[in-house]
Amino acid sequence: MKLKTSPFAPERFPDLPEIAGVRAATASRGFYAGRGLNRDDVFLFAFDDGTSCAGVFTRSTTASADVKWCREALKAGGGKARALVVNSGNSNAFTGPKGVLKNDATLAAVTEALGVSKTECFLAATGVIGEPLDDPNYVGSAVPALAQALTSPNWEACAKAFMTTDTYPKGAAERCDIDGQPVKLAGIAKGSGMIAPNMATMLAYVFTDAAIAAEVLDHVLREAVEASFNAITVDSDTSTSDTLMVFATGASQAPLITDRDDPRLAPFAAALTRICRELAFQVIKDGEGATKFITIHVSGAETQQSAKTIAADIANSPLVKTALAAGDANWGRVVMAAGKSGEPIDLSELSIRFGDVHVAEAGSRTADYDDDAANAVCAEPHIEIHVSVGSGPGRGTVYTCDLTHAYIDINGAYRT
Amino acid sequence: MKLKTSPFAPERFPDLPEIAGVRAATASRGFYAGRGLNRDDVFLFAFDDGTSCAGVFTRSTTASADVKWCREALKAGGGKARALVVNSGNSNAFTGPKGVLKNDATLAAVTEALGVSKTECFLAATGVIGEPLDDPNYVGSAVPALAQALTSPNWEACAKAFMTTDTYPKGAAERCDIDGQPVKLAGIAKGSGMIAPNMATMLAYVFTDAAIAAEVLDHVLREAVEASFNAITVDSDTSTSDTLMVFATGASQAPLITDRDDPRLAPFAAALTRICRELAFQVIKDGEGATKFITIHVSGAETQQSAKTIAADIANSPLVKTALAAGDANWGRVVMAAGKSGEPIDLSELSIRFGDVHVAEAGSRTADYDDDAANAVCAEPHIEIHVSVGSGPGRGTVYTCDLTHAYIDINGAYRT
Repeated sequence: MKLKTSPFAPERFPDLPEIAGVRAATASRGFYAGRGLNRDDVFLFAFDDGTSCAGVFTRSTTASADVKWCREALKAGGGKARALVVNSGNSNAFTGPKGVLKNDATLAAVTEALGVSKTECFLAATGVIGEPLDDPNYVGSAVPALAQALTSPNWEACAKAFMTTDTYPKGAAERCDIDGQPVKLAGIAKGSGMIAPNMATMLAYVFTDAAIAAEVLDHVLREAVEASFNAITVDSDTSTSDTLMVFATGASQAPLITDRDDPRLAPFAAALTRICRELAFQVIKDGEGATKFITIHVSGAETQQSAKTIAADIANSPLVKTALAAGDANWGRVVMAAGKSGEPIDLSELSIRFGDVHVAEAGSRTADYDDDAANAVCAEPHIEIHVSVGSGPGRGTVYTCDLTHAYIDINGAYRT
Repeated sequence: MKLKTSPFAPERFPDLPEIAGVRAATASRGFYAGRGLNRDDVFLFAFDDGTSCAGVFTRSTTASADVKWCREALKAGGGKARALVVNSGNSNAFTGPKGVLKNDATLAAVTEALGVSKTECFLAATGVIGEPLDDPNYVGSAVPALAQALTSPNWEACAKAFMTTDTYPKGAAERCDIDGQPVKLAGIAKGSGMIAPNMATMLAYVFTDAAIAAEVLDHVLREAVEASFNAITVDSDTSTSDTLMVFATGASQAPLITDRDDPRLAPFAAALTRICRELAFQVIKDGEGATKFITIHVSGAETQQSAKTIAADIANSPLVKTALAAGDANWGRVVMAAGKSGEPIDLSELSIRFGDVHVAEAGSRTADYDDDAANAVCAEPHIEIHVSVGSGPGRGTVYTCDLTHAYIDINGAYRT
């Protein structure tokens, strides 16, 4: 089926800077040929010697072979990166021994073509679950030509090559100074369904010319993910392949940062959080069938974690999402979803606001409740819902989209 | 909007027996007049002196005023029951002080009309959340006429009176012997959306002429609910009003049972479980927009609870539910949903079967995998999925329905 482009799709792919020390190439292995699509579905990134990296991955207990490899390589290689190979069209999750053979063959092809160590090579795959490739070298056979074609990245081509049900390619750029030296960040992401906050939630990669030791990079990445990819949900389903990695080539003039308490790290950490948020928001805006971008703010909870749990339960409620799709400020369902979280709520203090329209205060509908005003807020493509559940210090925000007919169309038709 | 009747709706309401000691009446308070519907929306049940009762209620932290009252009355009254008043059209949840006033007025009307104690009177309300009634006696004003009209229950009329988005009235009957004496059970239920397993999950009432002490009744009810209402889910949303109560008049010739270890209790406990399962299954079969009745069996888990959690995560996955709606045996999504549970899974032993069709064994797709055969299973209205996640002793089953366009239509239009 032809997917309708998200109403949030940008007019054109954003400008992403060249990142010194990063080269890339894309190719087609024909994963989508059976659907009559002639498109690229694999990319190779190569990184100059000295590149550090960090990653966060799905918490799924049925994680893909690629996710397992990345975890193993990060541990064994100490956070050094020389290559990244990603394909769409087949997720290599639940593929048993054949999935491992596919990874072995791909890694062998990369180490040979680029003359790098295996534990410096990272993999990911996205697409249908549970279909092992009969030819273990199906992806690997593309590597020699990809290695020949490496050049300054065509970011849009890369972002397109790992799309699945995405309706537009996703990219973002940031800049910051470290100790007075300019540093650049470029990021690409894919994701549309099977999106729920549990570490990284889809595939996303950020590339920078900053010089950051791997251990420090890991630290700032884990901070950045909490306010970005771990704060979004499309459908409460957690992918087997979720991966977010950051690669730092150190090719800028900025000094190497080796201590997580180094004050010069702060602007980079902030820029990394910004680019992760922008990429995560693009994923939500391309959520399967999405027509609304919804922000759920919860305050007054006992703890930060409690606030985020309540916000996530509201964001994941199909009854809330279908009401908002219809432009209905059905705040009773917000009450319901907050209640099902099981988190402590002071019902006598519960207040709810849609945009600037207060609909509930101190545990009841507001005296001057105005249904039309609340519905008007929900008629807009961006909806902010504020829920105060008591007088505690806990605050949390979760981002989501609405649940529409298109979600059902897409997911009834995706595999077949 | 006019709701399309569930394909699982029975041709006619089942025959339910008269239960000695139980009388009922229904009336209209016009809750649905605004939608042009002239229908009954309130019922009163009266029980003879000596009736014991037990109940389980929503675990929601935003439970309705009625649920709070029932918990309080059960505690204060020691499980004695003389009356039950239920209305549809307004849930009396998140209605603040006005919600309590409505309950006080209704209880005053019942105690006066029937000459019974307040703590022997139970309440429930279902419908829109957060709309307090300006007239606290709106429901209570119907009570005097209802009390005059009490008669042997017209079960179908009662089951219809508390329907909301239900497309058919739900009832079931059971019989058993206690110490050689026949005992009858009759039950009614309502529920279609906002259905997820968390104690009782909708409104359901079971009436019996058995003589069971309240403490024992509570014990067997909690056992029965685990395999019935706590094993179903429509949309993962937990209602603020979920209530399941059982009333035992003791009007049969069966002996009074006062000890939960009394061996004569077993047939009654089994009959109660059967009637609860039948009512729970009817709720699933009338799940909003449902076209498939889906049973998820999980075995080989470390514990019973782990098995049930995995089964519930599969049953609640919108990606699994949309695939099954389309008749697609997308078992990769079953792997994904099992993985997102976070429960221990031995991936090398993971096996999946759709009906009799094995699709995955020992962590990979089966060698003779037959997509068409698996899809044929999913083309049927009843689908059984068996998932083995290891070699542990834990087994659990959860029942659900598919996710279709009609769910979105119903929930985009329900309030407005």
